[in-house]
Amino acid sequence: MYNEQVFTIFGGTGDLTFRKLIPALYNMEMADGGEYCPRIVVIGRREYTSSMYREKARDWVEKFARLSYKEEVYEKLAEKIVYYRMDFTDEASYEGLDAFYREMGAKKHIFYFAVAPRFFEIIVSGLHKVDGARDGKVVLEKPFGEDLAAAARLNEEMEGFFSQGHIYRIDHYLGKEMVRNIQTIRFANPIFSNVWDAGHIECIQISAMEEVGVESRGGYYDRSGALKDMMQNHLFQILTIVAMEQPKSQEVEDMHREQMKVLEALSLPENISESMVLGQYDGYRKEPSVRADSSTETYAAVRLFVDNDRWRGMPFYIRTGKKLDKREMQVAVVFKSPAPDIEPDILNIKIQPTEGVYLQFNIKKPGESVDVIQAKMDFCQSCSSVNQTNTPEAYERLIAACFKGERSWFSKWDQIEASWKYVDAIRDKYRLGGVPIHVYKPGSDGPDAAEQLLNSYGHSWFD
Amino acid sequence: MYNEQVFTIFGGTGDLTFRKLIPALYNMEMADGGEYCPRIVVIGRREYTSSMYREKARDWVEKFARLSYKEEVYEKLAEKIVYYRMDFTDEASYEGLDAFYREMGAKKHIFYFAVAPRFFEIIVSGLHKVDGARDGKVVLEKPFGEDLAAAARLNEEMEGFFSQGHIYRIDHYLGKEMVRNIQTIRFANPIFSNVWDAGHIECIQISAMEEVGVESRGGYYDRSGALKDMMQNHLFQILTIVAMEQPKSQEVEDMHREQMKVLEALSLPENISESMVLGQYDGYRKEPSVRADSSTETYAAVRLFVDNDRWRGMPFYIRTGKKLDKREMQVAVVFKSPAPDIEPDILNIKIQPTEGVYLQFNIKKPGESVDVIQAKMDFCQSCSSVNQTNTPEAYERLIAACFKGERSWFSKWDQIEASWKYVDAIRDKYRLGGVPIHVYKPGSDGPDAAEQLLNSYGHSWFD
Repeated sequence: MYNEQVFTIFGGTGDLTFRKLIPALYNMEMADGGEYCPRIVVIGRREYTSSMYREKARDWVEKFARLSYKEEVYEKLAEKIVYYRMDFTDEASYEGLDAFYREMGAKKHIFYFAVAPRFFEIIVSGLHKVDGARDGKVVLEKPFGEDLAAAARLNEEMEGFFSQGHIYRIDHYLGKEMVRNIQTIRFANPIFSNVWDAGHIECIQISAMEEVGVESRGGYYDRSGALKDMMQNHLFQILTIVAMEQPKSQEVEDMHREQMKVLEALSLPENISESMVLGQYDGYRKEPSVRADSSTETYAAVRLFVDNDRWRGMPFYIRTGKKLDKREMQVAVVFKSPAPDIEPDILNIKIQPTEGVYLQFNIKKPGESVDVIQAKMDFCQSCSSVNQTNTPEAYERLIAACFKGERSWFSKWDQIEASWKYVDAIRDKYRLGGVPIHVYKPGSDGPDAAEQLLNSYGHSWFD
Repeated sequence: MYNEQVFTIFGGTGDLTFRKLIPALYNMEMADGGEYCPRIVVIGRREYTSSMYREKARDWVEKFARLSYKEEVYEKLAEKIVYYRMDFTDEASYEGLDAFYREMGAKKHIFYFAVAPRFFEIIVSGLHKVDGARDGKVVLEKPFGEDLAAAARLNEEMEGFFSQGHIYRIDHYLGKEMVRNIQTIRFANPIFSNVWDAGHIECIQISAMEEVGVESRGGYYDRSGALKDMMQNHLFQILTIVAMEQPKSQEVEDMHREQMKVLEALSLPENISESMVLGQYDGYRKEPSVRADSSTETYAAVRLFVDNDRWRGMPFYIRTGKKLDKREMQVAVVFKSPAPDIEPDILNIKIQPTEGVYLQFNIKKPGESVDVIQAKMDFCQSCSSVNQTNTPEAYERLIAACFKGERSWFSKWDQIEASWKYVDAIRDKYRLGGVPIHVYKPGSDGPDAAEQLLNSYGHSWFD
């Protein structure tokens, strides 16, 4: 029974926990009576008692949960939460954790590593001392490793301890409603599926724009950057779902197989400086824990190709950045124009904050003219308030899936390995090729060079 | 100069003239200062003076014109209108008409035959006596003839008098905004043009539903019926635009050539009773001038095929009827479902009263389910009041086109001949096959048998 599983969060006082995990657990408590999750152990270094932690957590729920705050629901959740104080980087302290688990009668475990990846190994070492931990499940936050070598080492470490089917590498974009929807939109509609290839599409653009800067994560981010923090995981996941062949079945293995083929078919840009723009927002170097001479990119735009029969010759444009003029994640499929002076048909899948589909196609201008204008149609899935509160957030889905042992929407190691390979190779190339870092204004749409990159190929970013 | 042309309406006190022609002339006066049309002669049998007629016409403009009534604009129009009293079935009276034209110095003519087709020949006979009439243009209202033989005789008569390029056979559906738009929607959008064939489309439905009954036209209608009154002309025109290959150019000759190919490829149903439903609304036989034992159809639904490479095997469903539950003219393109339990994508081109495009396609149901639901998108061209008043009505366009000598949106004789051939052949078949006339309730959606017809092929009418 999955409700015997104790849910332990390493990093219990961190950003992710209070913004996402605790609110998600609250929503699950409200929506389905918290059936999946009977006991929650929160591990942190701070000097909290359980009751102090519960009061903190109450604020987070009030502030960040999608479902409105209800005293009685929160109290039911709070009763399940135990705060356990320890320094998880201190291996010795795991003996105490083991004793604590024995005392509470915990036999089955889910360990959620809501900490920077550099701590993954030390926690695993510690867990050797916890009885039954080896048979538990582990949930790992992205990024998985900091480069290919580190990721491979980490994976070995993880697979050396946990059994392979018990490692849940989270990519919360995979829990997002409209990411899950891409497959349906692609494969359940002849108007799209029949033109989903380089012969009919001019380019595909995947954008993840953030308004926030690095906030309290400067230390981590400065070692990472946009390519590793966003592109290697989230954006490549979306790219593979957009580009893959139709899986033979709904089974996760079939989908992963098709995604892998896309990653393997990614080709490296020949001339990196004509295929990539990096940027850093003005003021980034003054952010807390960021190096004063940092050359870490907070913006990246890449032009890449998938070298297979479906996509050969058609560019994918991918961009992501921080401190931009909007928060917006979307995929734009720009079809080929039937004539030079006619605007392209565009299918725009909106992932966040709005969830929906926008479609632009050509009609005749009303009246005597035979000019062509665009009909613009919007289907907004998240616009009705009913849908908005009824749709579970990515973290709720993924936590529930982990309890239930459903592995379909977690990343597999071979995918992670393949995307690290590609990102590492790109990084090597641009270091050698001397791709400059363009400084851009916070609140802008990123470096001008990113628009110029596309313009030089006759394209422009869809907004 | 086209503004030397005198615009003469035969049937100046008829339904068409007061509902459509006079309001159209008013709108043209308002929109472009009436530049095309300096003088209007209205011919009728009633004992009006010009000033009496102008007062009548003022009411029609106030009631039926799309642009709001303005005294000064109407006065400008009214000054152009002269009422000429004569019985146009009396050949002798055309001598007087000739004298009248001489007196007013009319040299160039446009004759608008806003009368039942049985009067066309007698008017042409009369016009032999009018100096310069032979070099004028003639505008003929549909239906052109009452069957193939009558139409052919009439055409011979017309072409024997007027020069061929001067015969404007009006099909006011061809002036409708969204009918003109079908070509753009089909050919300027890869998402549609690539799936516009029997391989990707399940069926195409063309519907022209009317709320009105026969009103004052019972005498004409009872000799005609739905097939001749609507299908032979309007619906076949739309069918050919929906089904034709892309014309080589925007030239009218190229478009007509492609439309003709569709008409020539229409195949007759083998078993007429399984391909056609006829109906008559309850109470029709009591309408003024309708025979008490009339078996004229006021509703017709037909299943037909276009026997060419693009369309072989895919049914076109066409229906039209009077006294139905709504006034609605539209084309529904129902694409093939990718799986048995998935709803089809539907492209719905709305022609009247709403002008726009509706698109229905599949997305994943929000939430945990992987069920497929329909995203429904609407682009309403006529919804904004700006567009509605800015878009000229069909008659304005067609009258202006006639003044300018633009023949693109008028029917050609070979098209009329081909569609009469098809309709006559269908009528012969169903007379022999004994297709019953189903009585249906006024205000219903027609005979149940029309829905059953489609159901028997696994389809249903799109609403």
